[in-house]
Amino acid sequence: MNFIDKLIAAVKKYENPSVAGLDPRLEYIPEAIREKASREYGGGFTAAAEAIITFNKKLIDALYDIVPAVKLQLACYEMYGIEGMRAFAETCAYARSKGMLVIADGKRNDIGSTAEAYSSAYLGKTPIDGSERSVFDADALTVNPYLGYDGVKPFIDDCSASGKGIFILVKTSNKSSGQLQDIVTQDGRYIYEKVAELVDEWGSSVMGCSGYSSVGAVVGATYPQQASVLRKIMKKAYILVPGYGAQGGTAKDAAKSFNDDGLGAIINASRSIMCAWKSERWAEKYGEDGFDQAARDEAVRMREDIHSALETKRECD
Amino acid sequence: MNFIDKLIAAVKKYENPSVAGLDPRLEYIPEAIREKASREYGGGFTAAAEAIITFNKKLIDALYDIVPAVKLQLACYEMYGIEGMRAFAETCAYARSKGMLVIADGKRNDIGSTAEAYSSAYLGKTPIDGSERSVFDADALTVNPYLGYDGVKPFIDDCSASGKGIFILVKTSNKSSGQLQDIVTQDGRYIYEKVAELVDEWGSSVMGCSGYSSVGAVVGATYPQQASVLRKIMKKAYILVPGYGAQGGTAKDAAKSFNDDGLGAIINASRSIMCAWKSERWAEKYGEDGFDQAARDEAVRMREDIHSALETKRECD
Repeated sequence: MNFIDKLIAAVKKYENPSVAGLDPRLEYIPEAIREKASREYGGGFTAAAEAIITFNKKLIDALYDIVPAVKLQLACYEMYGIEGMRAFAETCAYARSKGMLVIADGKRNDIGSTAEAYSSAYLGKTPIDGSERSVFDADALTVNPYLGYDGVKPFIDDCSASGKGIFILVKTSNKSSGQLQDIVTQDGRYIYEKVAELVDEWGSSVMGCSGYSSVGAVVGATYPQQASVLRKIMKKAYILVPGYGAQGGTAKDAAKSFNDDGLGAIINASRSIMCAWKSERWAEKYGEDGFDQAARDEAVRMREDIHSALETKRECD
Repeated sequence: MNFIDKLIAAVKKYENPSVAGLDPRLEYIPEAIREKASREYGGGFTAAAEAIITFNKKLIDALYDIVPAVKLQLACYEMYGIEGMRAFAETCAYARSKGMLVIADGKRNDIGSTAEAYSSAYLGKTPIDGSERSVFDADALTVNPYLGYDGVKPFIDDCSASGKGIFILVKTSNKSSGQLQDIVTQDGRYIYEKVAELVDEWGSSVMGCSGYSSVGAVVGATYPQQASVLRKIMKKAYILVPGYGAQGGTAKDAAKSFNDDGLGAIINASRSIMCAWKSERWAEKYGEDGFDQAARDEAVRMREDIHSALETKRECD
């Protein structure tokens, strides 16, 4: 089955167009988990990786029947070296075993032959011993468009061959995203609009039964005006929306990335879910031991927040 | 010591502005090495990683006293999973132990807080157990500029704090690089020129005694005309030039990225050095067992090739 059809089926099943970001920092993890890992593994990156694995698995246990997908920020794993990558691999496998879709947020990019190697690592398979083997085996990967089509095609080929997806950076959520992405071109358009046109074009070869493509886009919730424009340019792209919550984007902002069918976007929250147990809203109710329940309650609150923003959008449009 | 001053000192010492790309593919590795690893490690990614490590170390042994730096393409290691990352780490450490500078070619990019995590992984240090530890500890990293300054600043901070360097993608060597990079802006300039201006500006905070910055740029040998223009825009950026050899760029093309002082660029060759033993030029002389000597001879040939192209440039300019 096509990635995008799997994603939409899961979004509909849970009535929840959101993604839980598992971008662990050690300070997000309750002391008890970190101490236990330190005792058992003697500190260092091995203990850090074990703490992350325990934390992630408990979050997945608390979320898998209400949230369709997780997004793993690769940098947060790479910073703990080989042990960190082991935590990444174990988290991917565990989330998939629980039926969640896994988005590897790696923003990978390179020339064609090298993009192929990246795609083997995260989406496709690596040839070995006369056969082929999955490596990290995520369901989707974020990709940077700066190199143009021949750097993106290998990923699209794996979308097609292995039922995977990609989300291409179009308008990122950070403050200085405009420095390059908002440059105005000769024909009076922004670079992010040009990239959106390319995403729309590139996605046409991997359409799902749903009418959406397995080639999606990244558009930050922090740029709602641009999101409205981009939604129209990339009619069939699913938009992955970062920037909700801790980065300042609201559900109303994120709603701009949806189509009138109530589909077309998924909203990611990382810190607000992972650190719900530390937040003003949930800390008193749950404390450190109830971090997973706090994450679940926050995920439910977020879902309702999105529902009500989409409702308002329907009424006002 | 500043990264760029270290690089320039090494280039001068070996009279060689070139970089050996260690972007291993199993088919580049002599059969005997692969078979031995398979026998000892029972096949799979562990045997692949061991074969890569043996191959890389022998290449480093053959090159370290004539070539100043190696460039490791991360995708080629990630495609073998955790074992591949172990091969990456061991190769980095071995090359540094032999006095070579290590450029991690990862084209990483993300919003500020995440770029920080990437920078910890490859350039800086990761906080752990109340202290800090180096992770992969390369000397430099390639970085993609699509997110603008706040996604690049964390890397520059580590250049400054830890004597490291970055090379920012400006004009990449692949065929479709123009799709985004050659878009003409409102003021009649190309996107790659705009990015070059940013690179020049961003680099001003990490200048070496040499007058060059530790913030460099990537400009493909396959675009010599653009290289001439970019050389003038980024006067103080060191340019990492991919695309020489197997990708079709000549020494004359690559020479466009040098300044009149004979400095300002380093030229990478991967396949032509790693696979020298398979090439028409060296296969007969060396065969499989002499792959490291073939690589050395090819590196010497490349150095002479660059010298003569720079000589011609001096005479003609």
